[in-house]
Amino acid sequence: MSESVAQDQIQSYFARWQRLEDEKANIGEDLKELFKEAKGQGFDAKVLRKVFRDKIADHAELAEFEALYELYSTALGTPLARARDARDPANENFGTVPITGTVS
Amino acid sequence: MSESVAQDQIQSYFARWQRLEDEKANIGEDLKELFKEAKGQGFDAKVLRKVFRDKIADHAELAEFEALYELYSTALGTPLARARDARDPANENFGTVPITGTVS
Amino acid sequence: MSESVAQDQIQSYFARWQRLEDEKANIGEDLKELFKEAKGQGFDAKVLRKVFRDKIADHAELAEFEALYELYSTALGTPLARARDARDPANENFGTVPITGTVS
Amino acid sequence: MSESVAQDQIQSYFARWQRLEDEKANIGEDLKELFKEAKGQGFDAKVLRKVFRDKIADHAELAEFEALYELYSTALGTPLARARDARDPANENFGTVPITGTVS
Repeated sequence: MSESVAQDQIQSYFARWQRLEDEKANIGEDLKELFKEAKGQGFDAKVLRKVFRDKIADHAELAEFEALYELYSTALGTPLARARDARDPANENFGTVPITGTVS
Repeated sequence: MSESVAQDQIQSYFARWQRLEDEKANIGEDLKELFKEAKGQGFDAKVLRKVFRDKIADHAELAEFEALYELYSTALGTPLARARDARDPANENFGTVPITGTVS
Repeated sequence: MSESVAQDQIQSYFARWQRLEDEKANIGEDLKELFKEAKGQGFDAKVLRKVFRDKIADHAELAEFEALYELYSTALGTPLARARDARDPANENFGTVPITGTVS
Repeated sequence: MSESVAQDQIQSYFARWQRLEDEKANIGEDLKELFKEAKGQGFDAKVLRKVFRDKIADHAELAEFEALYELYSTALGTPLARARDARDPANENFGTVPITGTVS
């Protein structure tokens, strides 16, 4: 190809790239704003993001991860595993999560 | 400072840096080897790494994360939350996750 | 806030988040496609991306980085510094880097 | 394998992992300290790190990257390409890099 063609091409690619990067940056700002708003209403942004990601993830895979996590962490004696099991099966009001006393 | 001093300094910093980077690379290899071995014995490396990280993390923080995670995912209707509740005999929505006693 | 309000809020945040993540994923695909096309026409995608990033970066900062880079790499005896100096006809150490006029 | 064997294994892997992660963290601290010292002596840590990395990188690859970078950035009209070419070939004192006036 001739040099002038390459120059046109590179400038065309750059224009496309810049537009896409601008849009990406705008979306990044919108996402930041979303979590800022949620935080302003009392949500924990980090947990919320993880819940959102897991919501659209492969749930069979997540359940498998979770099952192995419990198995390994119990074998290793991780307090978190015990914290999860501390949930009283009789408790049906989930708004009050009973993480009581057993985490050390 | 004179230029020759700067040259000695920069070469001395480089020698220190290179030694540290070599050590870091060796440790990286050892960690890779560790998880490869574990995988060879039937462990899931990704889950194992997360369990190890959580074991040395701040457990109060993890329990707080976990509690909020359950709260939000229940509000959002994430199946994973229900998967966890499958241990509750009253919950019949999700079946039973087979957390049996052996690895692999 | 009541629990049902929180549930509405979290589902509203999730809907917004999902839409934004979808748009972000589409842009990511468009960027991948752009560099794939450029590669198909003989461009090196990695170099192209760096040139594009530098084009919109702070040029005074880049020039400062470049000047210090040359200074340090010369002090350390990095061949690359000599490669750059190959354009200087007096420098015969490194041969001539073939920057000829056409791409590909 | 029996559960108790898995428990021993997981605890053994964890002990190895923890030791390696501790060493890695120490090296990370040493590297941080190195660049902090260099900064204290007037070096720009970011540039220094890049010079060190390039020193141990594949130099033929770097020279190829550099050649294409110049070609593309010239085609795109990036000021940095002009800044590099602004170097007066008659100037032989490299300690004073002449990045003068042409960056806009």
